Amino acid sequence: MRIYGEEHPNQEILSRIATNDGHGENSSYFDGWKAYENDPFHLTDNPTGVIQMGLAENQLSLDLIQDWMKKNPQASICTEEGVSEFKAIANFQDYHGLPAFRKAIAQFMEKVRGGRARFDPDRIVMSGGATGAQETIAFCLADPGEAFLIPTPYYPGFDRDFRWRTGVQLLPIHCHSSNKFKITQAALETAYRKARNSHIRVKGIVVTKPSNPLGTTMDRDTLRTLVSFVNEKRMHLVCDEVFSGTVFDKPSYVSVAEVIQDDPYCDRDLIHIAYSLSKDLGVPGFRVGVIYSYNDAVVSCARKMSSFGLVSSQTQHLLASMLGDEEFTTSFLATSRTRLCGRRRVFTDGLKRVGIHCLDGNAGLFCWMDLRPLLKEATVEAELRLWRVIINDVKLNISPGSSFHCSEPGWFRVCFANMDDTAMKIALRRIENFVYRENDAAVQAKNKRKWDETLRLSLPRRFEDPTIMTPHLMSPHSPLVQAAT
Amino acid sequence: MRIYGEEHPNQEILSRIATNDGHGENSSYFDGWKAYENDPFHLTDNPTGVIQMGLAENQLSLDLIQDWMKKNPQASICTEEGVSEFKAIANFQDYHGLPAFRKAIAQFMEKVRGGRARFDPDRIVMSGGATGAQETIAFCLADPGEAFLIPTPYYPGFDRDFRWRTGVQLLPIHCHSSNKFKITQAALETAYRKARNSHIRVKGIVVTKPSNPLGTTMDRDTLRTLVSFVNEKRMHLVCDEVFSGTVFDKPSYVSVAEVIQDDPYCDRDLIHIAYSLSKDLGVPGFRVGVIYSYNDAVVSCARKMSSFGLVSSQTQHLLASMLGDEEFTTSFLATSRTRLCGRRRVFTDGLKRVGIHCLDGNAGLFCWMDLRPLLKEATVEAELRLWRVIINDVKLNISPGSSFHCSEPGWFRVCFANMDDTAMKIALRRIENFVYRENDAAVQAKNKRKWDETLRLSLPRRFEDPTIMTPHLMSPHSPLVQAAT
Repeated sequence: MRIYGEEHPNQEILSRIATNDGHGENSSYFDGWKAYENDPFHLTDNPTGVIQMGLAENQLSLDLIQDWMKKNPQASICTEEGVSEFKAIANFQDYHGLPAFRKAIAQFMEKVRGGRARFDPDRIVMSGGATGAQETIAFCLADPGEAFLIPTPYYPGFDRDFRWRTGVQLLPIHCHSSNKFKITQAALETAYRKARNSHIRVKGIVVTKPSNPLGTTMDRDTLRTLVSFVNEKRMHLVCDEVFSGTVFDKPSYVSVAEVIQDDPYCDRDLIHIAYSLSKDLGVPGFRVGVIYSYNDAVVSCARKMSSFGLVSSQTQHLLASMLGDEEFTTSFLATSRTRLCGRRRVFTDGLKRVGIHCLDGNAGLFCWMDLRPLLKEATVEAELRLWRVIINDVKLNISPGSSFHCSEPGWFRVCFANMDDTAMKIALRRIENFVYRENDAAVQAKNKRKWDETLRLSLPRRFEDPTIMTPHLMSPHSPLVQAAT
Repeated sequence: MRIYGEEHPNQEILSRIATNDGHGENSSYFDGWKAYENDPFHLTDNPTGVIQMGLAENQLSLDLIQDWMKKNPQASICTEEGVSEFKAIANFQDYHGLPAFRKAIAQFMEKVRGGRARFDPDRIVMSGGATGAQETIAFCLADPGEAFLIPTPYYPGFDRDFRWRTGVQLLPIHCHSSNKFKITQAALETAYRKARNSHIRVKGIVVTKPSNPLGTTMDRDTLRTLVSFVNEKRMHLVCDEVFSGTVFDKPSYVSVAEVIQDDPYCDRDLIHIAYSLSKDLGVPGFRVGVIYSYNDAVVSCARKMSSFGLVSSQTQHLLASMLGDEEFTTSFLATSRTRLCGRRRVFTDGLKRVGIHCLDGNAGLFCWMDLRPLLKEATVEAELRLWRVIINDVKLNISPGSSFHCSEPGWFRVCFANMDDTAMKIALRRIENFVYRENDAAVQAKNKRKWDETLRLSLPRRFEDPTIMTPHLMSPHSPLVQAAT
């Protein structure tokens, strides 16, 4: 008998998916998380640790949910008041989902959109978070090698969700700060033509609206352009609307659902929405993803696929009651928006005091922070050098724009809703100190005319001359002003 | 402008996966479910409806879990006693899972196996039920076009789980009733050679143990044969052990974990277990699937894939407490086994009284019922004709062996643990009446020598002569005995 057990490489025995790096975790986006995990900030236990600002989590309004639960013990199957439902719920594994759950989700989606769009509970398909929703949509719409166009910057997780196991490609529609990263018809045409010239079949466009990482909503005209484009080219429009409940300021939110309701010429078979409760409600642990498609065949196929990522019936049951309580959801959404707005203001005001500007935003759990003035040169390498200083020295995990496939170096996504007020204050203080330090370094550098790039990060030349600084970057109290004088 | 919105077929715009039938739902297995759904039995509301015996659900011991929950309100985040954990748990989305959850799962898996195998919590990977576990394993181990060998009969859902989105093939190892459907070395070699002759790369063997649909455990020698075979051929052994906690009778259960512990020559990189709490605990709605691999690369890759089907943190938290309570799990497993054993006995004794035999079984939530004597001819068509009569006239949803890829027509899987005692009695009475009726028809047919197959199902010739009936088929009270005389 042959003695087995000899060594052999995994490459030979595992799949290509398992042995390639297609999951996209080798990204500075995820590296930042690891840096946080190795040294996590804690107010008392580890006050000098890394503060996690790389996680788009909404922790600001969970107290409202806790209060609701205390008042509604019958909503859970794990309470004396609700346990009689345990058997029926624990056994419920139908991939259609609990009817009350689907109804409540549809109702909540309508409320989030100000009642301006209708959702049919029978089109609500469950998935394992938005992550599962995106992959399911990709599996339904495209074959390996086919592509979706996607405006940059975009969420790094999409490389995993849309591409990894499906073999589908994501091709960038390059957007720029000059027009606040809006998608233009020209950029769309360019991306499409480029794909066609490379003989890649484009199956659709994916947009996240409100945008992650920009924190902006998409205006109605842009949305109409997209709807028109996909209809003309006979391809799909996939709208990731997972941040739709976080719009806290004007202009108000426009869902694709609203736009196509008003468009008699739109072929609805081409329109699909991904949704989730992770961001709007702040319960990412519950893994509630939703695929809402206007295409019957996609609803049917996605529902079959949902077997791979159904929502726990324990969770469905709880949420059916909670989201079915309109008084609660109305008040929750209003309070959540107010708190998000307040938090963003505290953060951006703090940044402004030290001369740091963010893209104007009205939604999301993050700012798109412009650190271009701090780059020595407009390259991804310089961006990543700055990022490493911020992670390692400033001890903030923020995410570099390059990990979001941004075309312009120097932008960073900074999450502000996954911490309490104290942590936010500490984060702001760290940024202030960092800018002071950089500033001192710049002054020293100017005096000495001697740069030591290996020891510290230097400010770019244009900071040395205050006359070229734009007014919005330089508040009267900015240390950069003093530094430059 | 082009007026869009014209009709176009979905085939052109959707993926091949979405437009093909690879999900395997076009099977009599699932058709039976639909028949049940259209006319579900209810003791008072619909007493003549279809009784669901096609669903391997364990409803017999959920009262124990309900009792535990009443005594342990702090285990849930939805109670006054546990709500203070809400925020931390609702936010928890790390794909490693709650450490306490993984530990409790590992502990439960050990207990289920009588403490004869050890499981490392760091190798516990979550998935959306066993469904998700199987697909994840297939994605990790094989490329499209590659294959796993699988003994027949096997669970119809595997066609979806292993094949649908992965492009992987399942190739049968044909097993037969002559040796109680055991896997032989010869059958294994034949299946392997056939694949090789067709230039298909075989990446592994998949077995369900205890077997679904047979309700039998796999003996240690067979398991050793499999371990040896995969090592020699350098392929994987995937053991679906989702029914391991349902073994209620001798011989006792042997996990692959136990066998490889004793085998110094086994390359553990080739061994993988799929597990779930759906069957052993009876909570399929909770979608708790587990991948346990001895291969580090598979653990790492599967964990990344688990993003598509994580277990709700609400559910993880609850189960961490429940399964961590060893006193409870010990008592639960013992009671559950006793009840399953009792239920199976009631059912098989009832069948025996009317001359129907099942394969000897000691596990699972179903019997493998031998209706070969009722087939007019040994063909799949005859089996399906009989099945339609049972569904439509007898009003029992049982699953035909052909839907389990069984090589021998006439076997049916009948689930017995997804109903209460009353429904079970009614199901047995319906079977009795059916056999009486068939028997009368056979007598009539014998007398008249006239067959009208379009109106009723006739008994095969060998029933007409009692001398060829085997003793175990014919209890003294069997109406078949009377009928044949």
